[in-house]
Amino acid sequence: MTRRELFKMIGMAAGGAAMYQAMSTLGYAAESPFKGPIDLSGAPKGASVLILGSGVAGMTAAYELRNAGYKVQILEYNNRPGGRNWSIRGGDSYTELGGYTQHCEFDKGLYINPGPWRIPYHHRGLLHYCKILGVPIEAFFQINYNAYLHSSKAFGGKPQRYREIKADYQGHVAELLSKATRQHSLDDAISKEDAEKLLESLRSWGALDKDFKYGKNLTSSERRGYEKDPGGGLTAVPIPSQPMGLSDVLDSGLWQGIPSGDNYDMQTALFQPVGGMGRIGEAFGRELGSVIRYNSKVTKIEQSERGVTATYVDTATGATHSASADWCLCTIPLPVLAQIPMNVGQKMAAAISAVPYASAIKVGLQFKRRFWEEDDHIYGGISYTDLPITNIGYPNCDYHSPGKGVLLGAYIWGLNAMEFTAMTPPERVMKAVEYGSQIHPQYKQEFDNGVAVAWHRSPFTMGCYGMWSSDARAKHYEDLCRIDGRIALAGEHASYLGGWQEGGVTSALDAIGRIHQRAVAQGSKA
Amino acid sequence: MTRRELFKMIGMAAGGAAMYQAMSTLGYAAESPFKGPIDLSGAPKGASVLILGSGVAGMTAAYELRNAGYKVQILEYNNRPGGRNWSIRGGDSYTELGGYTQHCEFDKGLYINPGPWRIPYHHRGLLHYCKILGVPIEAFFQINYNAYLHSSKAFGGKPQRYREIKADYQGHVAELLSKATRQHSLDDAISKEDAEKLLESLRSWGALDKDFKYGKNLTSSERRGYEKDPGGGLTAVPIPSQPMGLSDVLDSGLWQGIPSGDNYDMQTALFQPVGGMGRIGEAFGRELGSVIRYNSKVTKIEQSERGVTATYVDTATGATHSASADWCLCTIPLPVLAQIPMNVGQKMAAAISAVPYASAIKVGLQFKRRFWEEDDHIYGGISYTDLPITNIGYPNCDYHSPGKGVLLGAYIWGLNAMEFTAMTPPERVMKAVEYGSQIHPQYKQEFDNGVAVAWHRSPFTMGCYGMWSSDARAKHYEDLCRIDGRIALAGEHASYLGGWQEGGVTSALDAIGRIHQRAVAQGSKA
Repeated sequence: MTRRELFKMIGMAAGGAAMYQAMSTLGYAAESPFKGPIDLSGAPKGASVLILGSGVAGMTAAYELRNAGYKVQILEYNNRPGGRNWSIRGGDSYTELGGYTQHCEFDKGLYINPGPWRIPYHHRGLLHYCKILGVPIEAFFQINYNAYLHSSKAFGGKPQRYREIKADYQGHVAELLSKATRQHSLDDAISKEDAEKLLESLRSWGALDKDFKYGKNLTSSERRGYEKDPGGGLTAVPIPSQPMGLSDVLDSGLWQGIPSGDNYDMQTALFQPVGGMGRIGEAFGRELGSVIRYNSKVTKIEQSERGVTATYVDTATGATHSASADWCLCTIPLPVLAQIPMNVGQKMAAAISAVPYASAIKVGLQFKRRFWEEDDHIYGGISYTDLPITNIGYPNCDYHSPGKGVLLGAYIWGLNAMEFTAMTPPERVMKAVEYGSQIHPQYKQEFDNGVAVAWHRSPFTMGCYGMWSSDARAKHYEDLCRIDGRIALAGEHASYLGGWQEGGVTSALDAIGRIHQRAVAQGSKA
Repeated sequence: MTRRELFKMIGMAAGGAAMYQAMSTLGYAAESPFKGPIDLSGAPKGASVLILGSGVAGMTAAYELRNAGYKVQILEYNNRPGGRNWSIRGGDSYTELGGYTQHCEFDKGLYINPGPWRIPYHHRGLLHYCKILGVPIEAFFQINYNAYLHSSKAFGGKPQRYREIKADYQGHVAELLSKATRQHSLDDAISKEDAEKLLESLRSWGALDKDFKYGKNLTSSERRGYEKDPGGGLTAVPIPSQPMGLSDVLDSGLWQGIPSGDNYDMQTALFQPVGGMGRIGEAFGRELGSVIRYNSKVTKIEQSERGVTATYVDTATGATHSASADWCLCTIPLPVLAQIPMNVGQKMAAAISAVPYASAIKVGLQFKRRFWEEDDHIYGGISYTDLPITNIGYPNCDYHSPGKGVLLGAYIWGLNAMEFTAMTPPERVMKAVEYGSQIHPQYKQEFDNGVAVAWHRSPFTMGCYGMWSSDARAKHYEDLCRIDGRIALAGEHASYLGGWQEGGVTSALDAIGRIHQRAVAQGSKA
């Protein structure tokens, strides 16, 4: 697939928000069917599996296959384990396609996760490996009621607090539905008894007054916040705040941000590994030790009736080597895999070319102080904006720490991501600072340094994650996942959990379960 | 005020849920007016303040007054600092009124907070002291979408997941309001343009299909959860779940639990100190050192034109002593203070007797394993039930830890609290286990040991917190807070943040600000 085709695919999705909506609707974002550790008992003596890629999928497979008695080797392009499971820290360097090298200058202990950054409670497979690998997890706030919803086109560009938009939308919805119910407009839809209970519920849920109105009073302020907050002693009396009108809320479009914490993938409890998402990949890497051969760029994958051989170049020395095994589990992201000669059937080959990759960009920004906590009282969570940066993510750790801090300064999608990909990394960083200062004016004074990862320029993935359309999935998904001879594919692209590490875990377990069945059926051919 | 009067007051509130609702409505639960460190510059040389009680209010006052140059002493009844800021850990003992002593047998590192357990992001005063005292904080989940809402009278007593009730209520509300809007029932309330935007918003917010229906499909499952979750490989296709009907949701009453995380005091971000709420009191205690005299039971408070003298009994030796200062800040909880002779005017005396105290009980239960994580996939947060225990609170720390774990097994209010107060502590614990097993059947197998604190039997407070009625507040609040001669009162009871530590902090700062003004005006009288 060419860049042009890809661009067209993404253009069809009409920008970041719509694309994200589409992802959710297509069920990209949901629960893992992980039911506990996989049973691979009875591995044929001497049977071997070659795994390509030491991302979460590849290392999950290696861990389980090795423990089951298989001979396992992983070839990894990077000089580190994890793949997209990755944290960039001060002192790290990263060279993107095109040759630009960034040197991260964050303070000790600060990091940005260019790839995945949150783990929902129902991603049981990934959480299982966190547990057995001893990777501690801590809470990730998706929703922060004091963070901002921002539209450059509404409220004069002034960001609104999440709690204000949510309370006011909910209050107006409750008032309108109460009105319709009380004037008997819905009598054909609900019984009299239900109507009474509905009214009772709407008053409580929508913070309405006794006349079913949503207005300026302590009841609504108890949701949206006060004009003057209650306190102690003789200066304590609270003053209620003025809700926005329904028109203002609807016009602003900010209601789009309300249910972001209701989505199954973003519901509490959400987690992050203590110290950065990359802690998972690092722990897997330590556990697997010499099973992983780093700096190994696969250039050819060839199978026969007896086994599979991968040819690879040692990127440190330039020397060419090969590795062979009975079976191959290939977790190489599809845009890279599509460029590697591999003798599989037409169906798998067609499937490999059928999936465009999302073009996300993340920017990490270090500031001289944690002004979002000190000035704005935002501890963790995310602000959303209609600007190209889409997100400002606040660190969900080290609260109150007196030193510098790192924000996720941008999480860019779709066409905007294409524009940002075309910039140099320092240009991306400065653009993120410029946009972000519309939400936090402190940016200009407090900015220190930053890094920017454009996934389409990542040499090891050439994109962020597989973006299946419903058509492509109907036509190609099973062909992608079925074992072709002695080769099986795994990774988030071979799952219904696109873009999630849990897709990598569950696809790996599914694939090695099937490889194991065949290996047992055939006995050892080594 | 007699016990009988108190009981009547609480009885009027008609049970825990209603009482809590009333508290919220009255504005008990809201933001701190804390604007930064207090300025007490220019303290008269040699001026002194005697502080009664080393809870959060007393220690806040002592810390600031001492730093401003005042001579400060605290008399504290307990043998520890903190007051209701308190964590019970393995090895701790606690003797309640009536003489029953509990010896806590929790494993190392496990604790229960009998008093406050969460800190909202807007309680800036308390967070300020956490920061300067070096008490690290971590996230507290109020809402957990995978925790339970439970009614013993609905769904055959089977607990429902929060995400199911929330998604279905929201979906049905959106469908009904869409219907009313589309059939023009609300044309007098909203413009045509707004109606179109409202419909667009309801579809997204309520997870409706293209026909504005809330039904069984991937869109609604993306909120409420799936029947079969999406996964990876060839076993990946998700199956949607069946939403409940509106009648079932309304009948169950479980909609009452939906907005608990929308309330200003319970919105994310919420925090707890790492290691237990008691870490704040302990840190204050270390900071103040010999300023605090423990085991000192105040028996009389007497003021003259020149100063204030408190008589106290050393509970370790039985000896009687006295302490004097120019001014007195008294933070003793009102039910205790009402029993101590103190020569203040009729107005303050009447105010002291005007505030009944809430009768809460907390039960901490240790289990042999963290089955709520392992079996039920509930990490932190709270399940709500209509049983007398009202809450099951899951630990918001040490996720995935392999050993034992401690739940908040009950948080009992109102009339139920009176019943539980009459039981012995072991009876309270066993009753909590019995009720809780209706929600988690694992209780019976896994229960290890427990502790139960009934606040009306707490010798140092004789109640949980001050429960102002609007009438009482109108009549007595200012009299309670005004300085009487040389005596000022502080504590959550002297605030609009009843039951919150922030009420203690802000009332203390307000009171010492006024004491300071008078002291400066009068010059040193020492």
